[in-house]
Amino acid sequence: MIDLDELQLAARNHGMPLELLRDPITPAGLHYLLIHFDIPHVDADTWRLEIGGLVRQPLSLSLAELRARPARTIPVTLECAGNGRALIPDHTPSQPWLREAVGTAEWTGTPLAPILAEAGLADSVCELVFTGLDRGIQHEIEHDYARSLRVAEALGEDVLLAYEMNGAPLPPQHGFPVRLVVPGWYGMAHVKWLRAITAIADEFEGYQQAGTYRIMRFEDDVDGPPVERMLPRSLLVPPGIPDFLSRERHLAAGRVVLRGRGWSGQAPVERVEVSDDGGATWAEAELEPPLGPYAWRGFSFGWDAAPGEYELCCRATDGAGNTQPPEPAWNYGGFCNNAVQRIRVSVSAR
Amino acid sequence: MIDLDELQLAARNHGMPLELLRDPITPAGLHYLLIHFDIPHVDADTWRLEIGGLVRQPLSLSLAELRARPARTIPVTLECAGNGRALIPDHTPSQPWLREAVGTAEWTGTPLAPILAEAGLADSVCELVFTGLDRGIQHEIEHDYARSLRVAEALGEDVLLAYEMNGAPLPPQHGFPVRLVVPGWYGMAHVKWLRAITAIADEFEGYQQAGTYRIMRFEDDVDGPPVERMLPRSLLVPPGIPDFLSRERHLAAGRVVLRGRGWSGQAPVERVEVSDDGGATWAEAELEPPLGPYAWRGFSFGWDAAPGEYELCCRATDGAGNTQPPEPAWNYGGFCNNAVQRIRVSVSAR
Repeated sequence: MIDLDELQLAARNHGMPLELLRDPITPAGLHYLLIHFDIPHVDADTWRLEIGGLVRQPLSLSLAELRARPARTIPVTLECAGNGRALIPDHTPSQPWLREAVGTAEWTGTPLAPILAEAGLADSVCELVFTGLDRGIQHEIEHDYARSLRVAEALGEDVLLAYEMNGAPLPPQHGFPVRLVVPGWYGMAHVKWLRAITAIADEFEGYQQAGTYRIMRFEDDVDGPPVERMLPRSLLVPPGIPDFLSRERHLAAGRVVLRGRGWSGQAPVERVEVSDDGGATWAEAELEPPLGPYAWRGFSFGWDAAPGEYELCCRATDGAGNTQPPEPAWNYGGFCNNAVQRIRVSVSAR
Repeated sequence: MIDLDELQLAARNHGMPLELLRDPITPAGLHYLLIHFDIPHVDADTWRLEIGGLVRQPLSLSLAELRARPARTIPVTLECAGNGRALIPDHTPSQPWLREAVGTAEWTGTPLAPILAEAGLADSVCELVFTGLDRGIQHEIEHDYARSLRVAEALGEDVLLAYEMNGAPLPPQHGFPVRLVVPGWYGMAHVKWLRAITAIADEFEGYQQAGTYRIMRFEDDVDGPPVERMLPRSLLVPPGIPDFLSRERHLAAGRVVLRGRGWSGQAPVERVEVSDDGGATWAEAELEPPLGPYAWRGFSFGWDAAPGEYELCCRATDGAGNTQPPEPAWNYGGFCNNAVQRIRVSVSAR
């Protein structure tokens, strides 16, 4: 059960309808969206990115200047750190995702590391703070949305200042004109509507870094481990046709190829298993070739569906040995719920 | 309070974040979306639209053939008939919209009437049935999504077979490759993923026509009036900045230009009023020039915001004398709730 506050968030933010798992690249309008405050209106002609703080040469870059730099395009799976929150009992009220807060886009931008090299980080720099143009109040603190990365993470060769999504300029809701892309991390790190990058000597204490996105055991537990890289997860395209309200699936008996995608920000997905009995027994799915090191990996499984009622599940395991648990691990913020998906399916005789 | 079934729908379907009311035309990825079943995957090369039933010359048209016909582009405001449902107590469980199920796009397509003339409707034809490729189960009835129009409505000169939204091919979620656009009507009439148009001699009895989209006094009240044209409604861009969870707005005292948009499918909007005291007193807003006969109309209001707590409201009146009520009119399906918007605003001293 959710209340009006959570419903207001569910009505604003967008999940990816799970049938879109059929596509390796998610169309921009169907990619998940979590927007803390309002979508800013940005004039690209006057927008600039300011790079400052503890640097030898502060920079101020226009969109044209960023676009003139070397470009790379990388398919990256983004998932909200709160995906699955509504399935964790007694979490703090927030966006009530079930399992649909995910998407994979081809992000085009210029690598961040050479820009930081040009600015020249002082030896004392501990973190880079990325600040967006979106402003609001959370937990009674008024702030611009901002997140930090440790220097080594920020210098990663695949961290991009992205200005295109799927070959087109970023849409307003995905951070126009420029957002950060940090492959492998949950969505909160990929700061949208970027306006400043600031080098600092300490750990960033902003609300979105220190006050949330942590595995909290109780309210204001600021000592919990920070939420960073995505845990392994996999999702099936729900087979057959849906019931409008319950979303239970209906199909006729026979051979069905189940398809889905799995991902992990910890290490590549190396194995996906499928169950038709709610996880009591598992069988190996066949993996498709990878799309890239940071994108979900397709899988398929030939299922001989006999008449009856089923609970389909899938479970990804990554190269670091992490796998998905049968039930969510509780935490106050409702983060990182990578419990296995469960789909009710009713198979009728032909 | 909503339950898991309603939450599943809220997570799939997309509202328009209300700050997007600043734009006269809504970007495709931010337009509201209500999808009963799954988004079909359609191969445009093999897709055809079949026009049959009680016609002298059945037609089968490819996408290229439709695109070769005369084209028109019309800005049209679409609103879900269930917009506002979550604010109607004790409605039947369904998509729990608050007020954000709206959007305005420029739809490009070919007029339907000349195609019906070419097919030659028999004199006995009463209705045209429009059938989509989306299939599922609702109210225990398995069906392709289908809706009908009376002949006179279907022959309206502005009814389009649309293949572009905002100058680009329809995105998958908006009915690729072709959808019906019936300006002035609630969203359920604008059948997506159109596959067939069938001329029939009686009133269509399909579930989406006869079993729902009616003003029902109780479950299965199939004698209630059908939901057809949009009632007048207006919405303000929420001013200032939001609180993440409550979405209450915060701004500094001073002159603020409040902006919004109003629409009606009954007659053009002729008046919009604004209140800062929850509707106890009203003042006239200034109307912008119309975008077109079927699109929302912009308005603005200069508000001198003194420190304090406010409830902002707005109220549209159309040329047929219809206006918005202060509270929703109850009905079992939760349809047509055009009660005035209420926005909590906290104004602080500068």
